[in-house]
Amino acid sequence: MIYKLNDTHDPSLKCRVETAHIPGTDFPIQNLPFGVFVRPKRNSKPHIGVAIGNSILDIFECVEEGLLAGLPEDLVDAGQCDSLNTLMALGPDQWPLLRRRISELLRANSKAPINAALVPMSEARMVMPARIGNYTYFYASIYHAQNVGSMFRPDNPLLPNYRYVPVGYHGRASSVVISGAPVHRPCGQAEGADSIPIFAPSRMLDYELEVGIFVGAGNPLGKPIAITEAEPHIFGLCLVNDWSARDIQKWEYQPLGPFLAKSFATTISPWVVTMEALAPYRVPALLRPPEDPTPLPYLTSVEDRESGGVDLDLQVFLSSEQMRSSGDKPALLSRSNLRDLYWTPAQLLTHHASNGCNLCPGDLIASGTISGPEKESRGCLLELTWRGAEPVALPGGEMRRFLENGDEVILRGRAGRAGLANIGFGECRGTVC
Amino acid sequence: MIYKLNDTHDPSLKCRVETAHIPGTDFPIQNLPFGVFVRPKRNSKPHIGVAIGNSILDIFECVEEGLLAGLPEDLVDAGQCDSLNTLMALGPDQWPLLRRRISELLRANSKAPINAALVPMSEARMVMPARIGNYTYFYASIYHAQNVGSMFRPDNPLLPNYRYVPVGYHGRASSVVISGAPVHRPCGQAEGADSIPIFAPSRMLDYELEVGIFVGAGNPLGKPIAITEAEPHIFGLCLVNDWSARDIQKWEYQPLGPFLAKSFATTISPWVVTMEALAPYRVPALLRPPEDPTPLPYLTSVEDRESGGVDLDLQVFLSSEQMRSSGDKPALLSRSNLRDLYWTPAQLLTHHASNGCNLCPGDLIASGTISGPEKESRGCLLELTWRGAEPVALPGGEMRRFLENGDEVILRGRAGRAGLANIGFGECRGTVC
Repeated sequence: MIYKLNDTHDPSLKCRVETAHIPGTDFPIQNLPFGVFVRPKRNSKPHIGVAIGNSILDIFECVEEGLLAGLPEDLVDAGQCDSLNTLMALGPDQWPLLRRRISELLRANSKAPINAALVPMSEARMVMPARIGNYTYFYASIYHAQNVGSMFRPDNPLLPNYRYVPVGYHGRASSVVISGAPVHRPCGQAEGADSIPIFAPSRMLDYELEVGIFVGAGNPLGKPIAITEAEPHIFGLCLVNDWSARDIQKWEYQPLGPFLAKSFATTISPWVVTMEALAPYRVPALLRPPEDPTPLPYLTSVEDRESGGVDLDLQVFLSSEQMRSSGDKPALLSRSNLRDLYWTPAQLLTHHASNGCNLCPGDLIASGTISGPEKESRGCLLELTWRGAEPVALPGGEMRRFLENGDEVILRGRAGRAGLANIGFGECRGTVC
Repeated sequence: MIYKLNDTHDPSLKCRVETAHIPGTDFPIQNLPFGVFVRPKRNSKPHIGVAIGNSILDIFECVEEGLLAGLPEDLVDAGQCDSLNTLMALGPDQWPLLRRRISELLRANSKAPINAALVPMSEARMVMPARIGNYTYFYASIYHAQNVGSMFRPDNPLLPNYRYVPVGYHGRASSVVISGAPVHRPCGQAEGADSIPIFAPSRMLDYELEVGIFVGAGNPLGKPIAITEAEPHIFGLCLVNDWSARDIQKWEYQPLGPFLAKSFATTISPWVVTMEALAPYRVPALLRPPEDPTPLPYLTSVEDRESGGVDLDLQVFLSSEQMRSSGDKPALLSRSNLRDLYWTPAQLLTHHASNGCNLCPGDLIASGTISGPEKESRGCLLELTWRGAEPVALPGGEMRRFLENGDEVILRGRAGRAGLANIGFGECRGTVC
């Protein structure tokens, strides 16, 4: 079930919040992403909010004001929780009811008393949108897998399983942090002279441009999710920076995969863009070359093939300490698109649960680094600089092989097309310290 | 800080609960492991309990009866939580106070009114002892790593990093289940004819004999745990069966490690034996052959070398459907010892946090399959049957290469030595369906 377009997507909708009409805003009335925020000056508890222009519609306050009256009781109660988990668990029968109500409250013709529920973003601090019980990474970009494989295993870049298995592995949930949290350069073992490893701060710190899938309603242990049933289990998407220490990774990752090279931090963007909001941007799954095998039947459906992809433009920017003190803007490092993944979100979810593994509301499933076929679309420094051999030049003359302390990495995501409202993901920021 | 022996370990202590004196009981008064139980007939909420003989001391009721009066308020409150997480978070300044009080309440000379708080085990159903936020596996048995490595990579069984890095990887927290929960045979991709994989129920289902470390107080993100500070972060140990589908594993695990081959289920034993209870059984870390490198300094301390190991005898039993209907007892498949790990619990914890990864109260860290040097001490069927080449004979004539439906796997653990009280871990059971 992929959402159909409805009046909440109408590009001509007018909004009561003027900043929702500023050209280039990430948060027009057609977006309505969910997040959780506090108001530091008021010492407030975390409230669920919806981004609209430069403001946040405080859903807790909407409930207080009776603005959600008439919606199912569970849904109204979920609006006053301190994380999105309860809302996520309610599933796709209920999510659209809330989206529609919020859309109606915010329309220019609405007289509903929303002023007390509108919070300027400048007064809010975003916190984690959900309690993430389980965090999984995939490796779903074939361009990334080919590039990295050819560096780590020159004789064998793409393993025989890649075109059949959506390769995935478990990540560390506790160190997933919200945009803006500092990222501590990790220490770890790396190869040293005479085959004796050293233990030192990583010298090959990298970012990874990824998209995260937030699971909505889960499945019971032992009950897989059919590919035709996978989409309704997805609540929405966010941006993910899966920071990686390449020197630690290279030394530790055999035979059981990356561990400390990644578990020191993963940064996510605060706004979760719902699958319903993304309905206008669904596209066919990546067209595979004729020599590639068709996915096994459990990973195949007509709907997924025809519209399982998501057309989402992604960008990585870097701002060094020197750039900031010189007043330089963040520099664009690369640009790619979620539609270029070898596997769709539904295929990732279905594969994940195919052994009976129980997915839970609030679980985060990251796509893996999203690279495209061109050099400019490589989603991490390891690929962009080809393991440091081809450093990247920054404004002001600095060069980067890997990240330096003080470097801020900024991910942005935006879905846009002529004749449709453009919707954005906000930013996913982190500074290395 | 490794616990010193005190009067709670005294082997001559007499207990008010008679079944705590039955020879061979896992739960004498010197043990006092923590778990969480419900009483199905009373529809009760989960209560924390302590195993004593064939009974459970209900800590919730102890608080109600005022039997913990005088202990710190936090500690008393933790006794009425519905999981051990809050108690675990309090740390080793407080845990011994509760152990001592419980020991005193249960001594033969105590007049404290504990009868209302004593629950027959037969009336209780054990539930998960903690909410496991993060689950990590290690690969800490060099005997296991050598055996498996020589099957999966005959040319390269033990990789160059093994003797330096406590190899670990993230596991799936949501599918960790309590002893007795059914284990559904997973479906998954495995190698097929003509290099085209099949998707089918696993034909190489296996158990793994492991020990789990429950993290007590955690560390903040970005702040590693020194090896000299690691022991106080460990609350206690349990038994772990890390069920594994070897055919799925072989096909999926390169390059990023096992995923669906393990995430369908992990069974843990319900009783968490505290590090203080295990104090009499601490032994030197495994003596490494002189040709092996010494661990890097961050993994080295005098205390850990001298007493970082745990002398815990481990056993695996199997009971098939046919055996049960013939009245045969479960058959012993193998026997090994926690002291044979290449890395101590403190080394595993320190390595895990060495990159700044934040460990949290209730996190579970599994040792990896514990095998010893002899054939009889191989901790999984993959090793025991050498990938099916040497099937194991069961009483009644059945043969096993891998697990069949209806097979029940039972893990047991026991620390015992002449002149000391023997303490057990109870059982970790799971039946394949």
